[in-house]
Amino acid sequence: MQQLSIDLGPRSYPILIGEGLLAQRDLMARHIPARRLLVVTNPTIAELHLHALQQGLAGFDISVETIPDGERFKTLATASRLLDALIEARIARDGALVAFGGGVVGDISGFAAACYQRGIAYVQVPTTLLAQVDSSVGGKTGVNHAAGKNLIGAFHQPVCVISDTATLRTLPDRELRAGLAEVIKCALICDAQFLSWLEAHLDDLLKREPQALAHAIQRSCEIKAEIVARDEREQGPRALLNLGHTFGHAIESATGYDEWLHGEAVAAGLLIATSLSARLGWLPGADLDRVRALLKRAGFPLTAPTIGSEQALAHMQRDKKVRGGRIRLILLKKLGTAEITDQYDPAAFKAELQQAFGP
Amino acid sequence: MQQLSIDLGPRSYPILIGEGLLAQRDLMARHIPARRLLVVTNPTIAELHLHALQQGLAGFDISVETIPDGERFKTLATASRLLDALIEARIARDGALVAFGGGVVGDISGFAAACYQRGIAYVQVPTTLLAQVDSSVGGKTGVNHAAGKNLIGAFHQPVCVISDTATLRTLPDRELRAGLAEVIKCALICDAQFLSWLEAHLDDLLKREPQALAHAIQRSCEIKAEIVARDEREQGPRALLNLGHTFGHAIESATGYDEWLHGEAVAAGLLIATSLSARLGWLPGADLDRVRALLKRAGFPLTAPTIGSEQALAHMQRDKKVRGGRIRLILLKKLGTAEITDQYDPAAFKAELQQAFGP
Repeated sequence: MQQLSIDLGPRSYPILIGEGLLAQRDLMARHIPARRLLVVTNPTIAELHLHALQQGLAGFDISVETIPDGERFKTLATASRLLDALIEARIARDGALVAFGGGVVGDISGFAAACYQRGIAYVQVPTTLLAQVDSSVGGKTGVNHAAGKNLIGAFHQPVCVISDTATLRTLPDRELRAGLAEVIKCALICDAQFLSWLEAHLDDLLKREPQALAHAIQRSCEIKAEIVARDEREQGPRALLNLGHTFGHAIESATGYDEWLHGEAVAAGLLIATSLSARLGWLPGADLDRVRALLKRAGFPLTAPTIGSEQALAHMQRDKKVRGGRIRLILLKKLGTAEITDQYDPAAFKAELQQAFGP
Repeated sequence: MQQLSIDLGPRSYPILIGEGLLAQRDLMARHIPARRLLVVTNPTIAELHLHALQQGLAGFDISVETIPDGERFKTLATASRLLDALIEARIARDGALVAFGGGVVGDISGFAAACYQRGIAYVQVPTTLLAQVDSSVGGKTGVNHAAGKNLIGAFHQPVCVISDTATLRTLPDRELRAGLAEVIKCALICDAQFLSWLEAHLDDLLKREPQALAHAIQRSCEIKAEIVARDEREQGPRALLNLGHTFGHAIESATGYDEWLHGEAVAAGLLIATSLSARLGWLPGADLDRVRALLKRAGFPLTAPTIGSEQALAHMQRDKKVRGGRIRLILLKKLGTAEITDQYDPAAFKAELQQAFGP
């Protein structure tokens, strides 16, 4: 088992990563600071893995609430249902919620835990690679609004994250890849050595080799944690984590959030960001080729929909990360070194959008 | 104008208290760190005082949302409506919400501000004495659930509180008294000198003399702030602020939250807490007489409903401030010195409940 600590002062918490952690009773008892728990999960995960978790949680007093899977259920209405469930399960201030599933379960459950009695403890038990590397670090919780994703939410740190690589065995290929996009993103932002490691171990990861997965999860969490620790409330450097996301959001918005998985859109966005960096002369063309080759081997769709550069720009401007109408981009100074900047040649930006999204 | 600063590190904020502050344009411009605002208010306050606020906010870009008044509208549904209104008003992360009304408006609005885009700035402009002395300090925001009051919420500090004593002129007598209960509570907890001041100036306060009001508000906020600063997330000494509240909750629960105002129930609860303290021999009988006399002069109903001591106890045990089944009480060691304790004679507690609520 690997363990890392997210250092956020009084809100610090451990992330435990390894094969078969769910069923480890001692581990759960040692790290979950409550006896009475509400486990929130979805029907798929309940069927595949709830049994293992229940083994691990023997001795705890648990209730289980199942919510439907999918981004379109990530609403205030579902969060409200969880608040009802917390009350029905008689969870007191010293109880805890266990979020057992992917990012949707984690985000809604974390938000419900943040709001219930003004904040109770919650444990993240992420079951997708994306959730293990991304949403389990950073304390972002929330739900969508008809007007936009994650418009309603809270910053609320879990008390513990338990990432069992065994749960990734049952993950569809597309979902595994979606998680890999965030892993590759972490390497591109600030660790060229990790990028080389990913090039060397991509096949192991695609074969779901537990040790390779554990390392990829650990390193990604470390990178994200380091950035988040510098900027818990998202005022500055945390924006680095949005590498590829502004372009990706344009793809997701234009296609209605159901055609492309978030991770797939991010992968395509990473390529656009890298390509623009090369176009600006910040990266040699060979580096762009390396990134393209890695994303291709991972099996990502890399051709953005031809929505036209104007429409893509409009979507990017609506993205909440844009302030004062001026688009700050996350670009690469070299592989493993990203930068937040609005100091770039607008003509190169326009040309890149036209190449990616059509004229 | 009086000003005090609530010292909470990066979440510190000023409270401005005085007559006619609403319409002071410079004051608003100096203290509200946003240009685009959503003002949330209720129909009564809108009719009486929105004009003055709009004068003060000339130059800001404002939208106004009116929500119905009353505790029964303090729901997730109303909060959801405010989230919609924030989106419609195109409030971005650097915008702000202005809560303009009593405790209900403040609590719901603060909660909406806490959840919108994971937290935007909000300004409290409380228009009742209760809100000015109580809910504007402490950062508690939230809504009720069918299962209990304030079960859903967040800790979210305002960026500024503006308490205009002119708004208290239009406050019904009963509402003014409800605020005075919290003022008297503050004095009883930790300031015997302030208690003497209240005895000397009660008539001025009841006549709504601006200077007396401003002093009472300032001193109450100082006391609350000092306690909150020691315990922002309500783990320990903050419970002192619940003096009288555990008994008061029993009254409110038993009568369905519409017969007694919160402040009235607190006043009756203060008398029970003082009486129990005297019964335990911690206070001389003369002190109990002083407290009773002050509450009586203020015009409070002081006879709790005869629901029986058993039912009162059951309501108190359901109160969320009870942990592990054992009732910790806030009692007086002397006038101006409260203590959180479960070290008291159970027989005296029982006798007190029987005297207050009937056998």
